[in-house]
Amino acid sequence: MLTDRLTRDLYTEICRIPLIDPHSHINPHAAAAKSLDDILGYHYYTELAHSAGMSQAPLAADVPPRERVRAILGHLDSIDNTAQYSWFLEIAQTFLGFKGERVTAADCDTLCDAAERLMGQSDWEDQVLQRSHVEKVFLTNDFDDPLEGFDTNRYVPCLRTDDLVFHLDKPPIRERLARATGIDAGNAEQLQDAIGHLFQHFTQHGAKACAISLPPDFSPAPVSNLDLTVALGELIGGNDDANQRRTCANGVFWMLAEHCREFSLPFDLMIGVNRRVYRTGVFQGQDLFDQRTSLIQYAELFNAFPEVTFPISVLTSSQNQELVSYSWIFPNVVTSGHWWYSNIPAYITHDARARLQAVPKTKQLGYYSDAYKLEFILPKYNMYRRILAQILADDFVRPGVYSETQAIALARLLLRENSERIFS
Amino acid sequence: MLTDRLTRDLYTEICRIPLIDPHSHINPHAAAAKSLDDILGYHYYTELAHSAGMSQAPLAADVPPRERVRAILGHLDSIDNTAQYSWFLEIAQTFLGFKGERVTAADCDTLCDAAERLMGQSDWEDQVLQRSHVEKVFLTNDFDDPLEGFDTNRYVPCLRTDDLVFHLDKPPIRERLARATGIDAGNAEQLQDAIGHLFQHFTQHGAKACAISLPPDFSPAPVSNLDLTVALGELIGGNDDANQRRTCANGVFWMLAEHCREFSLPFDLMIGVNRRVYRTGVFQGQDLFDQRTSLIQYAELFNAFPEVTFPISVLTSSQNQELVSYSWIFPNVVTSGHWWYSNIPAYITHDARARLQAVPKTKQLGYYSDAYKLEFILPKYNMYRRILAQILADDFVRPGVYSETQAIALARLLLRENSERIFS
Amino acid sequence: MLTDRLTRDLYTEICRIPLIDPHSHINPHAAAAKSLDDILGYHYYTELAHSAGMSQAPLAADVPPRERVRAILGHLDSIDNTAQYSWFLEIAQTFLGFKGERVTAADCDTLCDAAERLMGQSDWEDQVLQRSHVEKVFLTNDFDDPLEGFDTNRYVPCLRTDDLVFHLDKPPIRERLARATGIDAGNAEQLQDAIGHLFQHFTQHGAKACAISLPPDFSPAPVSNLDLTVALGELIGGNDDANQRRTCANGVFWMLAEHCREFSLPFDLMIGVNRRVYRTGVFQGQDLFDQRTSLIQYAELFNAFPEVTFPISVLTSSQNQELVSYSWIFPNVVTSGHWWYSNIPAYITHDARARLQAVPKTKQLGYYSDAYKLEFILPKYNMYRRILAQILADDFVRPGVYSETQAIALARLLLRENSERIFS
Repeated sequence: MLTDRLTRDLYTEICRIPLIDPHSHINPHAAAAKSLDDILGYHYYTELAHSAGMSQAPLAADVPPRERVRAILGHLDSIDNTAQYSWFLEIAQTFLGFKGERVTAADCDTLCDAAERLMGQSDWEDQVLQRSHVEKVFLTNDFDDPLEGFDTNRYVPCLRTDDLVFHLDKPPIRERLARATGIDAGNAEQLQDAIGHLFQHFTQHGAKACAISLPPDFSPAPVSNLDLTVALGELIGGNDDANQRRTCANGVFWMLAEHCREFSLPFDLMIGVNRRVYRTGVFQGQDLFDQRTSLIQYAELFNAFPEVTFPISVLTSSQNQELVSYSWIFPNVVTSGHWWYSNIPAYITHDARARLQAVPKTKQLGYYSDAYKLEFILPKYNMYRRILAQILADDFVRPGVYSETQAIALARLLLRENSERIFS
Repeated sequence: MLTDRLTRDLYTEICRIPLIDPHSHINPHAAAAKSLDDILGYHYYTELAHSAGMSQAPLAADVPPRERVRAILGHLDSIDNTAQYSWFLEIAQTFLGFKGERVTAADCDTLCDAAERLMGQSDWEDQVLQRSHVEKVFLTNDFDDPLEGFDTNRYVPCLRTDDLVFHLDKPPIRERLARATGIDAGNAEQLQDAIGHLFQHFTQHGAKACAISLPPDFSPAPVSNLDLTVALGELIGGNDDANQRRTCANGVFWMLAEHCREFSLPFDLMIGVNRRVYRTGVFQGQDLFDQRTSLIQYAELFNAFPEVTFPISVLTSSQNQELVSYSWIFPNVVTSGHWWYSNIPAYITHDARARLQAVPKTKQLGYYSDAYKLEFILPKYNMYRRILAQILADDFVRPGVYSETQAIALARLLLRENSERIFS
Repeated sequence: MLTDRLTRDLYTEICRIPLIDPHSHINPHAAAAKSLDDILGYHYYTELAHSAGMSQAPLAADVPPRERVRAILGHLDSIDNTAQYSWFLEIAQTFLGFKGERVTAADCDTLCDAAERLMGQSDWEDQVLQRSHVEKVFLTNDFDDPLEGFDTNRYVPCLRTDDLVFHLDKPPIRERLARATGIDAGNAEQLQDAIGHLFQHFTQHGAKACAISLPPDFSPAPVSNLDLTVALGELIGGNDDANQRRTCANGVFWMLAEHCREFSLPFDLMIGVNRRVYRTGVFQGQDLFDQRTSLIQYAELFNAFPEVTFPISVLTSSQNQELVSYSWIFPNVVTSGHWWYSNIPAYITHDARARLQAVPKTKQLGYYSDAYKLEFILPKYNMYRRILAQILADDFVRPGVYSETQAIALARLLLRENSERIFS
């Protein structure tokens, strides 16, 4: 697919680097897909098929999986121009023996049968990991995940904290927190203890990061224990006030940063998502963003926690330009992957070039898969690796900035060594 | 002008697709230019010549057209680097037999004479349409346009509603509305009737869309009939209050969306323009924008009207990234052309690539001319077609994503078939 | 370093154009570096080395310069991917006889010795200027600079006004103003006189511009003398009120624009920087920005002063799209260079292409060095000239828009003639 020789050579070499995937949504108890429904049920396909005209009827729980697959395949024709479609095609070709050039509803049964046969093999998960050349995959774990029953060396736990910061007043969340920690956190001190408990649990089970996704208007600031206690009390008491909600979110968030400092965990910030913008959209296909957000909102945080590394994900090229500048200036800010709506070649190319030209090479986490199933790691990383090979060829090797060997060494930093060091 | 063979071949094929131009300002009663003054009087030339140092004296109504042309030609040297200049050069070469490489004031008389001779031919309009390979052109009609005396199959009416939403309190607008509908709309119910009247009139005369341009801070929301009646009353009564103005604009806008639903018309939203920013600029050369705007402002609208298709035009690449994401998620949001300040190759290339990589191909209106005279359709579309051919070559055909035939089929969607279906 | 012949030929020709550098921080009394410490002490290196992990200890005043150089060189390995590093490498190769491909701490003594020997030559400054082919360099002078003891034809004075607009209430600033003008400016009228004094002094000493850098939320507006007097009085009296501070800044800024009109000086606006964002960062490595800013904030200013030319620098590609549009419409707005965080190839390329495609060619100041030492002019301009050559080849010469000769003439406008005319 790459048309010039140098880029192709670089790509080939880059593909030899064993990956550390520093952010995914893999379930370590069911890491690989078991059927084509597991692949096409990924929100990238359900939401695009829906956007292109598919009703949500085939997505209902009681629809037979093969009929759901047939419905989605029937809409691929409208999205066969997209990067997202190309990931699916590459999965079909690489993992399912598909020989054609395009997938249509006519391929439904053949593909479903092949998927069942191949994915039903007892060593399928290992096969996928091996073929994808993946060494470690970071997870996204609920705060009350027992973190047991899987190899935490291969599947690295990561404490996801959205629920604590934004939904702590909701009874189910509070109950889960109480069950997980033995503490009924009704005030700041109890919350402090409960969060300490979670960090203890996670780091004892090999967790390497704390993570959160944040709305575009979030602007972290410290909150006194008294104010946090009052705010939490008001929310729990049912007084759903926007100021109290902000105080509570800020208080918990700041407390998490303090624990990251204490437990030496990087704090992954995924900045800019508005939840439920398209309220009746498909599952996980409802969130969008507001470009009017700035990393200046995080200046106090970056100043207050020089010992904490903050890998930052952003949603737009405009904010990527801020990220390039902030990670060039702040020692504790590092660039992290190409997130969600930014994860298409036109934006990856632009954003990655700027990072490579202006941010210390040791401060860049090149890419992560964000995958729910292992099969997506390969096509997503291949997309990134092709772009990286092209940038290395055009901006580094051809102009004489780097030799090919040095370019590959840079790729190795981006694809594994920086992750190894930053999440040590 | 295109240097690689594949791109040139694709371009040649793409140029064979008969165009449907889904947005213009063509006057169907005087669609083609009658003189060079009609061409160079386009605000792109008057504003750029003025920006480059020309006083506004030559633009006065009492200046002989040929002297105005000479003045503008005399300033082309300062703008011969621009895309806008290249459109003019292509018009001179294609339609006026100009053989030179650059146009200067010395060419004034020759060009004016040629223009008068050629444009004076009785079939000039047909000649231009035929040479431009245009099948249909959408218009921008005032709400009180009688829509008579022209072929609405060739020149498709489109109800432009800026005046109703933003200037309904002004006596001339209210009088025109009363004359057009027989209703003196002083409250919400009367307005409802009057707007129903307009939609009836327009759809009976073949209108295929409702359209409006909106300032960057516009944020549509429903308004009760009572609030709309009060707000309209206050404004008519001379109480020019910002809140009442907002309520009135929101109320009328929402009512228009309801009528789009009822009459099955797409609602073209052209988002982001501030009017009269350069207050003493030339006619139509006074408007600019504020990049701080977001499609999140339209989330309620998109949610409330799932049956209405919203073709969206934006003014910046930053907002284009929002548009790519919003049209990827919302079934009723489609991308529309490359508008005004975004309509130069550097931005078209970037914006179109992202759309082609992430938005269902059936949800993209590739381009529109925005032209005031037919002669501009050809050079503007050629600019877009060259860029499209390059993207199809680089991102689709060479990497093996599409065959050449499939790439041409995609171009056909962008240049006519999507318009046919969306504005059916 | 350039791989195609046309681009290389254009680059060679462009390099023959004698430069006028319209913005720098050169100290005319010590224009060239005297040691490697003067080169690596540039904030681009101290901040990037610090960002990549260097403590600030080596930057203390009492550290021997050679040890500081050794410490920074020891961190170059982490930033050898950056454009900033490439400037240093080119300085070492061009001016210090360095023959290697990479600079490391092992080169410290050799390079320091070479620097001392070469930079110690009595004609070093002339050698650097000659080898860099620089004819004039604009300075950034404090308002109380005596402007004596240097050749103002080679080093062109420029009145920098940040202190007056934003810090006029601070005793040291007020004392310096009083000493420079003989006026103790406690009210609007006195301030008017004092500023008149400064403009007199500067223009008599060959100043060609007034300049200022502005925070992203600055929004100039006229202020009455009474309001300015009250605001200044409150601030001097110790009442640090945000509204009074804004009134005072606006009042002084507007007064400066009036003086630019009276004295026929362009007013360089460098828009968008927040000071001291990383509060404990290295010297000059603490400032960042907020992308949420718009040129609409300057609409009143541009309308009020049609006689004043405003060369505008911006910090982001998003705001560059505004700048392209505003300079296309407003006769008195011109584009100026590629500033600070935008001064890396990925952003220069994108921003310069858009300007070249849509802004009159006579209204573009292509580049400035922003340098503190003369040695940086050459590598920074070379970076820009390579990009310019590539754009001229791809967008102008190859598509037949310009001949090579015309392309070089455009480069001459960008690199000197527009500066000559605009700062006449």
